[in-house]
Amino acid sequence: MRYAVLGTGQVGRTLGGRLVELGHEVRLGSRTADNPAAVEWAAAAGAGASAGTFAEAAAFGEVVVNAVGGRVALAALEAVRPEDLDGKVLVDVSNPLAFEEGELRLSPVESDSVGEQIQRAFPNARVVKTLNTVNCQVMVDPGRVPGEHNVFVCGEDARAKEQVTALLGEFGWPADRVLDLGGIRAARAVEMWLPLWMGLMQKFGHADFNLELRRAR
Amino acid sequence: MRYAVLGTGQVGRTLGGRLVELGHEVRLGSRTADNPAAVEWAAAAGAGASAGTFAEAAAFGEVVVNAVGGRVALAALEAVRPEDLDGKVLVDVSNPLAFEEGELRLSPVESDSVGEQIQRAFPNARVVKTLNTVNCQVMVDPGRVPGEHNVFVCGEDARAKEQVTALLGEFGWPADRVLDLGGIRAARAVEMWLPLWMGLMQKFGHADFNLELRRAR
Repeated sequence: MRYAVLGTGQVGRTLGGRLVELGHEVRLGSRTADNPAAVEWAAAAGAGASAGTFAEAAAFGEVVVNAVGGRVALAALEAVRPEDLDGKVLVDVSNPLAFEEGELRLSPVESDSVGEQIQRAFPNARVVKTLNTVNCQVMVDPGRVPGEHNVFVCGEDARAKEQVTALLGEFGWPADRVLDLGGIRAARAVEMWLPLWMGLMQKFGHADFNLELRRAR
Repeated sequence: MRYAVLGTGQVGRTLGGRLVELGHEVRLGSRTADNPAAVEWAAAAGAGASAGTFAEAAAFGEVVVNAVGGRVALAALEAVRPEDLDGKVLVDVSNPLAFEEGELRLSPVESDSVGEQIQRAFPNARVVKTLNTVNCQVMVDPGRVPGEHNVFVCGEDARAKEQVTALLGEFGWPADRVLDLGGIRAARAVEMWLPLWMGLMQKFGHADFNLELRRAR
């Protein structure tokens, strides 16, 4: 499969690198074609790896992964030709967090979400929100954390969620640990997990953790 | 120990009933002295149970539990003589949720929390936020859910958090499953868990679930 991964930060490089290892072709997209992090990544990641602009990456990918920060996701996607998203699965792993005056802040929050913003802006894309609830190393290697811990998917398109669940399986997430929360509106709920995730990360002193849902039945 | 439980809804009656079973004296507080739910609860709950106004309950309790909805918590507490909260542990188990036009909404959210509002309004109370992340039946009987699932405490007063952790132990929560998130500001994080809790409750079809933090170390 050909993947576009938008974003050259740690999340994008980690996801892109693992996709290449799994045998996929990956074009890492950034604002400029000569982004040093992307060029360096492409040279090191293997034969399936390339770098380009956001638009070049989206044109290349059969599936598009949004791995830029949630607050700049729309700006990154607006650099893409809309027809290069039409009908494609668009995997949004982002969180709209920023530190403002020393405090973690989320925006949008509660009455909207990045997942919904993207789906509204690109109604022909098949947006699936997933993986934003864990650190990027756990995203592609859930075995770093013991136990039957969970990850979420939500989105309007059931087939797209099935396809993303299969991709999560390639990363090491068994299908029974992938919890489908319904439509893209549930992106609000998973994005609002972040403040608790941050508090736990500070408490534990590392990011190799996740939540496991335990239930009576 | 003498407990004031403010709120005659399911949360207040469940917490109050369990505290009486555990041998404590409990006064259930409501806006009016003759609240039918409170009077009925006091008649049925046993010898240690009584009912009264918010002010009468707070004057009675050595520990005060806020079990009214988060959006009306300050209004309930303003009915109390402030000196009846001075130096007392004030356990806040509330969530500021409401359904508006068919949607779950939280207010305050993200830049503030009910826990912080209460602590600001009553600086001499020793506010501890806890238990708001689970259904009230799970609060007092964590064995309803299998596994080593977790509950959180946060607040400014370390001794108060120790006292609340001991109370949680009476309810059946071993101390090593109680995660201290630090100061009362972390109430934002645990209150923002609610949208995900609601989504999971709808998915599972019941409220007998909780999260277990799994971590590498």
